[in-house]
Amino acid sequence: MGPPPVVADVRRAVRHALADLEPGDLVLVACSGGADSLALAAGLGAVAPRAGLRAGLLTVDHGLQEGSPDRAADVVRLAPALGLLGPVEALSVSVGISGGPEAAAREARYAALSEAAGRLGAAAVLLGHTRDDQAETVLMRLTRGSGTRSLAGMPARAGLYRRPLLGLGRATTVAACAALGLSPWDDPHNLDPRYTRVRVRERLLPALEEGLGPGVAEALARTAALCRDDADALDEWADAVYARAAVPDSALSDIGAVAVTVSEVAGVPAAVRRRVLRRAAIEAGAPPGTLAAWHILQVDRLVTDWRGQRRIEVPGGVGAVRRCGTLVFARQSVRPVL
Amino acid sequence: MGPPPVVADVRRAVRHALADLEPGDLVLVACSGGADSLALAAGLGAVAPRAGLRAGLLTVDHGLQEGSPDRAADVVRLAPALGLLGPVEALSVSVGISGGPEAAAREARYAALSEAAGRLGAAAVLLGHTRDDQAETVLMRLTRGSGTRSLAGMPARAGLYRRPLLGLGRATTVAACAALGLSPWDDPHNLDPRYTRVRVRERLLPALEEGLGPGVAEALARTAALCRDDADALDEWADAVYARAAVPDSALSDIGAVAVTVSEVAGVPAAVRRRVLRRAAIEAGAPPGTLAAWHILQVDRLVTDWRGQRRIEVPGGVGAVRRCGTLVFARQSVRPVL
Repeated sequence: MGPPPVVADVRRAVRHALADLEPGDLVLVACSGGADSLALAAGLGAVAPRAGLRAGLLTVDHGLQEGSPDRAADVVRLAPALGLLGPVEALSVSVGISGGPEAAAREARYAALSEAAGRLGAAAVLLGHTRDDQAETVLMRLTRGSGTRSLAGMPARAGLYRRPLLGLGRATTVAACAALGLSPWDDPHNLDPRYTRVRVRERLLPALEEGLGPGVAEALARTAALCRDDADALDEWADAVYARAAVPDSALSDIGAVAVTVSEVAGVPAAVRRRVLRRAAIEAGAPPGTLAAWHILQVDRLVTDWRGQRRIEVPGGVGAVRRCGTLVFARQSVRPVL
Repeated sequence: MGPPPVVADVRRAVRHALADLEPGDLVLVACSGGADSLALAAGLGAVAPRAGLRAGLLTVDHGLQEGSPDRAADVVRLAPALGLLGPVEALSVSVGISGGPEAAAREARYAALSEAAGRLGAAAVLLGHTRDDQAETVLMRLTRGSGTRSLAGMPARAGLYRRPLLGLGRATTVAACAALGLSPWDDPHNLDPRYTRVRVRERLLPALEEGLGPGVAEALARTAALCRDDADALDEWADAVYARAAVPDSALSDIGAVAVTVSEVAGVPAAVRRRVLRRAAIEAGAPPGTLAAWHILQVDRLVTDWRGQRRIEVPGGVGAVRRCGTLVFARQSVRPVL
């Protein structure tokens, strides 16, 4: 008799996500003790031995709630029983306030996970995000008016991080924990409506399901996957155009400036050209996080609607000017003589 | 003293949408008598004379509500006062049931509008969709799990049809009607929660605004615009690949079959390759409306995961098989000897 179907689903997802690793590689699971990451940890513990992988666990104590060190200690203590016989660590972090409580906690968490993964020599760190988390992410980003890359949601892989459960619903992880006799921890933050994600999960997705019919989370996750492929293809095209259009001028690069030949970008579709211009702005020092679509639209007019405009300002003190058939991106302090 | 700002906004949008037309061209506005299309009709009436355009009006009587012929007659009678001195017609249609009430009414409406536009020799037919309609469309499509083209929403132009008001909110058209002393008709269907669009408008968008903050409709419309550019660029790439990959074989085309060289599509990004395969399936007779992403994913495996699979079925009785380094798409009844 095999394991219950929901447990088998989690294991299959973990096995698939780790198929390219070599025997002896160390895989760590990031586990909060919640249902998603607890089911994932159990899945890793079951899958790792047959794949010849070493398996360990990291849990992060954000220090934001009473009793959080005890809970981290509980998760650490549980690890061997889940089959995680490699390194197991509780990581204490201090959460700042920059960018709001969710962003600050996320930043502190990933910094600690990356540090530990590097120190322990891990080949992969598994994250417990499910299809429901993906749907929440896509919905939040959609209503920010961002583009295809943003709608692509969370990637199944990014650097060391892997998300094996993106194809499974939260109901599966909850059921898998129950089937395995595991008692997940219910984070009270997951019900606190001050958090945007909580409002999306508890109110908006149910309202969408009620108004549009069931399957909204699955549909949002499918949308994300299609958008990811589209964004990847457009990035590939933009990379090729950038390689042709960027002017190899050591005098410019010495001062951190970037120049792009107008004639090379004028003929490509708007979506590609704007990606090229965005990349040039970032290479010249504009911070990707604050560089918005409308900044790039202004810069794009230097190509598509050239009427002798003056310098276009983008974030990070970077400006774009058109001179002698090129767009030059440079920081204000640089003041190149052009 | 100029017109009130909201009236000026509508006129500016109409002027911009008609900038490419020639003096003497006939422009028709499709007007239900609701605030959006009434404001649009007034805008056309004000803009057309200065642009040297002839301006007329079409109103569709769907015959679905009591008094609808009277309402159509009211709209027709109002047209000259709005400055619409060209042809003015009420079009009676009979609405079927295929595809649901909204789809059937839409199909009947566009058929009648297209017929009248052709008969009257119109250069453009204006539709009153606003940014709010666009946001509703994007939200409905998003939760269907469709791709970038679908998220692009309604185009500002498609054939004869133009949507000048996609950049303006519904509040602007309502205020413009009030400022002009016009009394728009409130379609009771616009409050009937049996219609998906009504639920989206009356419940879901307000819920999103409440949960995520104001500006959701604008953000969804921006998302649509970015997705449209992305989809256009990817279609352009796919067209170029299709032109290289399609096998010019008159024996195949004689039987309505299409063949694509595997090596030409194997190296391009998944998003582009799937668009090429989709186009080949449609050329071979698959109906675009029912050809879903997952059908194409199955066909794609003949390229990316070739293990001697048998014929992959897609809608319209079309199947895809891999033979001698090509994918052949053909209708089942055709049974080519390959």
